[in-house]
Amino acid sequence: MREQATIRAVTSIDVARLAGVSQSAVSRAFSPDASISSRTRQKVLAAAASLGYRPNRIPAIMLSGRSYMVGVVIGGLENPFYATALERLATALRENGLQVLLMHVHDALTLDSALDQLLSYRIDAVVTSLAIGSKTVARALSQLHIPVVCFNSSLVGPWISTVNSNNHGAGAVAARRMAAHGVARPVWLAGPAKNAASRARGEGFRQGLREAGLPATALTRLQGDDTYDSGYEAITTLHRQGIRPHGIFSSNDMMACGAIDALRERMGLRCPHDVIIMGYDNIPQAAWRSYDLTSFDQHTDLMVTRAMELLDEALLAKGTPLSRTHVVDAQLIERGSTAITD
Amino acid sequence: MREQATIRAVTSIDVARLAGVSQSAVSRAFSPDASISSRTRQKVLAAAASLGYRPNRIPAIMLSGRSYMVGVVIGGLENPFYATALERLATALRENGLQVLLMHVHDALTLDSALDQLLSYRIDAVVTSLAIGSKTVARALSQLHIPVVCFNSSLVGPWISTVNSNNHGAGAVAARRMAAHGVARPVWLAGPAKNAASRARGEGFRQGLREAGLPATALTRLQGDDTYDSGYEAITTLHRQGIRPHGIFSSNDMMACGAIDALRERMGLRCPHDVIIMGYDNIPQAAWRSYDLTSFDQHTDLMVTRAMELLDEALLAKGTPLSRTHVVDAQLIERGSTAITD
Repeated sequence: MREQATIRAVTSIDVARLAGVSQSAVSRAFSPDASISSRTRQKVLAAAASLGYRPNRIPAIMLSGRSYMVGVVIGGLENPFYATALERLATALRENGLQVLLMHVHDALTLDSALDQLLSYRIDAVVTSLAIGSKTVARALSQLHIPVVCFNSSLVGPWISTVNSNNHGAGAVAARRMAAHGVARPVWLAGPAKNAASRARGEGFRQGLREAGLPATALTRLQGDDTYDSGYEAITTLHRQGIRPHGIFSSNDMMACGAIDALRERMGLRCPHDVIIMGYDNIPQAAWRSYDLTSFDQHTDLMVTRAMELLDEALLAKGTPLSRTHVVDAQLIERGSTAITD
Repeated sequence: MREQATIRAVTSIDVARLAGVSQSAVSRAFSPDASISSRTRQKVLAAAASLGYRPNRIPAIMLSGRSYMVGVVIGGLENPFYATALERLATALRENGLQVLLMHVHDALTLDSALDQLLSYRIDAVVTSLAIGSKTVARALSQLHIPVVCFNSSLVGPWISTVNSNNHGAGAVAARRMAAHGVARPVWLAGPAKNAASRARGEGFRQGLREAGLPATALTRLQGDDTYDSGYEAITTLHRQGIRPHGIFSSNDMMACGAIDALRERMGLRCPHDVIIMGYDNIPQAAWRSYDLTSFDQHTDLMVTRAMELLDEALLAKGTPLSRTHVVDAQLIERGSTAITD
């Protein structure tokens, strides 16, 4: 296939000739880390563009062992938060001269074979936002012997660094809000147990409530699975139990949207007049007028920047395992769902 | 870095020795297209697993020119439709032994440099869902001399195949619905002009209205940009002009959700009692109770299957440009926003 494509026939020798430089200068012009004057690089790039030349990275990968590809392991894109985070991450990696080898996995079981496939391409590192926190996964990732950067994860191990939202701190902020609104019996709508971020939000919320003088027995805990439907069902269950909520902190916005709809449809309750509610992630739908949901913004832009810094540091440490944790404060974005009403 | 990682020290020779097969059998066991008995492959995989061996694809890419990587060029993941489509596509490619080299681009300008980078990794093909339909882009893609598969695109050219939703046909279905509901002055909420799928939906809608006996002057056209906010603003503008809509067909669900919220907040109108509305994409939010939106489902699962077939065919045709178009019928998912009321 390649042989017949005339565009492929142009080689670095042709480019070197046209640019009036050496073949090695052409090679350096296309290497992100190579030492070359910007004037020479410009000459090479101009000549390459006019000839339709495209460098082949494969030989360089073979020689150097560096592919400039990063394995990005994702799941759960039905949550707009992860979709936006992926866009930001892909853009940041590209701006840093790295390519994204994407792997979409459903659970820890498929993660293992996914990693095998990624490694056969000699990826430089792995970045993942998977809410998979088992020790088996941590061990598997550490055994890759390449830098791993996780978002909102409780994974620890050599080679593994994490960038986390200040989930615990935000939970405490949510608790203080509840107290300020005079909510005596708050509801915590939890995400799945395997989600470390959700666990931390719940712990911060409980601690904040204690500090505000509320007894542990005042808290109602509902179990969701991070989906809209599970938020809707949790409130429906509450309704069947005859419990009328006054304040809800939801582990994510998707469940909060489901909760708001169930509050209105099942119980005839309106936010914020009858019940206040707060979510997490600040997804676009939180700002949609039907929800108008107060939510914690994780600052994914800042989290991605921190991840790139960790990646840089880990790649520079060549062969030495690095384990760092960055925590980024979440910002409460106040909307109608917690507005003070008289 | 690689040298210090003990896991890397295992070679195909070690695996061959443990499995009691030749080194070439080990290589074939890890090549998707290679001829090898399933018994031998099993022996090799078991030995590889016990030794922690991971094959290196890079030498094979150098020799064969095939990388088994497909460049996936995306944008606009803030629309849940594209996020879901990407998940399905990534899963399907992986099931077909192909890896996703992801490129996120914002517009046609960044597409060109994105393609250069992807090509330097010797990708086998490109798949894209970008709503970029310019002739410049078509020419750039054709000049890659590798198979290109586009979703919902009007791009034509050698090497370019497309999988499209039956946008025109769905538009006509929407028009018949309007007529059946007795809507005399329907509203078309259009996506951006560069979006070929939106143009086709609008043309089908207009043709369907004509066939239902409605004059062209009966149609009100609103311009959106595929976002929730643009749907909200379009209805706000309509309100300022003193026009009260009775039936709306929106080019996508995001704009329809914005329209529903503006109808309620700005005009005090409810769906379906005062106005019926239909969207396109069947995103998860269409089923959320605040919207309960009737929408056309594109059957992305089927579209992805068709794309994989086109890709297979194009890769088998080695070096011969292939141009095919598949059209997949959209299915109207009826919800509350078009329910018949008395």
